[in-house]
Amino acid sequence: MLTFIGLGLYDEKDISLKGLEAIRDADVVYAEFYTSRLMGSSVEKMDALYGKKVNVLVREDVEQHPKENVLRDARDKKVVFLTGGDAMVATTHVDLRLRAKQMGIETRIINGPSIQSAVCGLTGLQSYRFGKAATIAFPYKGNISETPYDTVKMNKKNGLHTLLFLDIDREKGFMTINEGIDLLLAVEARRRENVVTGTICVGVARAGSPDPCIRAGKIEALKSFDFGRPLHIMVVPADLHFLEEEALQAFAGL
Amino acid sequence: MLTFIGLGLYDEKDISLKGLEAIRDADVVYAEFYTSRLMGSSVEKMDALYGKKVNVLVREDVEQHPKENVLRDARDKKVVFLTGGDAMVATTHVDLRLRAKQMGIETRIINGPSIQSAVCGLTGLQSYRFGKAATIAFPYKGNISETPYDTVKMNKKNGLHTLLFLDIDREKGFMTINEGIDLLLAVEARRRENVVTGTICVGVARAGSPDPCIRAGKIEALKSFDFGRPLHIMVVPADLHFLEEEALQAFAGL
Repeated sequence: MLTFIGLGLYDEKDISLKGLEAIRDADVVYAEFYTSRLMGSSVEKMDALYGKKVNVLVREDVEQHPKENVLRDARDKKVVFLTGGDAMVATTHVDLRLRAKQMGIETRIINGPSIQSAVCGLTGLQSYRFGKAATIAFPYKGNISETPYDTVKMNKKNGLHTLLFLDIDREKGFMTINEGIDLLLAVEARRRENVVTGTICVGVARAGSPDPCIRAGKIEALKSFDFGRPLHIMVVPADLHFLEEEALQAFAGL
Repeated sequence: MLTFIGLGLYDEKDISLKGLEAIRDADVVYAEFYTSRLMGSSVEKMDALYGKKVNVLVREDVEQHPKENVLRDARDKKVVFLTGGDAMVATTHVDLRLRAKQMGIETRIINGPSIQSAVCGLTGLQSYRFGKAATIAFPYKGNISETPYDTVKMNKKNGLHTLLFLDIDREKGFMTINEGIDLLLAVEARRRENVVTGTICVGVARAGSPDPCIRAGKIEALKSFDFGRPLHIMVVPADLHFLEEEALQAFAGL
């Protein structure tokens, strides 16, 4: 039996009671923190609260050798697999679940809070007004991806907001909102299609923590605003409804 | 102090540990179940687990008279406000938070699992391939809204999936996937734009419960498939990636 459990946004207490019960009932506990990361916690804190040893896997363990860990154990033991955010959202976990199914291992999912809905609550931006999301990646060999820019362009044309995830890289670290904005403006400087110049942006730092920072303003002004510690994420909204505008004025300094 | 807490998807154990601690620390506990509903729980079960009396408010209480309940108490007491799904996602709660702010009441948010990310996990459909979401509403005075149809049309054109919420009405009850499909096909019969005929659909029933039902197939076949008890939700996907197709074959009978 393999149970995927979402740990939520910030620390070890964002797990659901159902998830905690499943961990305490498990024979083996695995976790991965390369698709997401609980910034307010540590493996030691998890071990202590959950009352079980949490075995952290790196990307290679999960993607290349799962038969030497998760899948091996799940054949005849109760295994839980922990991830930040909601469970099973990352593609790599779909793959793991498919492999489990092929081996005749039963799977189930215990959900956790996701940044996607948390951003709506924190900003007041309405969830049904979001279009496709995208990730701003660190430049690769000097090349800046134009995908996030194109996604904002398409969504704006359709009157929709764009949620932009910011890259997490083992070497380069956690991308800040400021770096994300720089990359968007670099594409704008090349393409000159007037998609983001002068636009309003909303930056969200540390969602789910006791001290989240939510700040809205012109993209040029947010470029140098200090959002503090990670994780960061941002939204480029389409035209705002009056209630969205009111919320950003009240809670995000617009 | 007013704390918005998301209860998650199905029963009283989907709340986070952080949320539970906030309830136990509160002076007054309010809840509303008109924007969402925990089908696997009851107020009695919540009272028992949370160790506090949960005061359930109807829509009028929250939207018209919040100064006689939530806002009155939050001026000088620790008040928590519980909702199904993630906290603060519904527009009506943004309004409540704005009113609190105007009265000088501090607010915070404790997130819960949301159906939006849960659908990705259960179906294997990739979250960044979803476009704008829409709600299929019960016909009003015989009129069927074309908004969900137009949303599917726009998203498909852009290669994106559409999440379709199904109406919850105090008198008409919980819309089933079958009813939602009927309404989409009724619009198709009128508009004849070939947006949904022959398309693949994915129905999800009872997300977050121990017996969720996930079924994918041609819309005409799902029209009469029995998904069982509520809540229901559905997706009209764009063209499937191979990993999405594989997941739907393995877990949703495609």
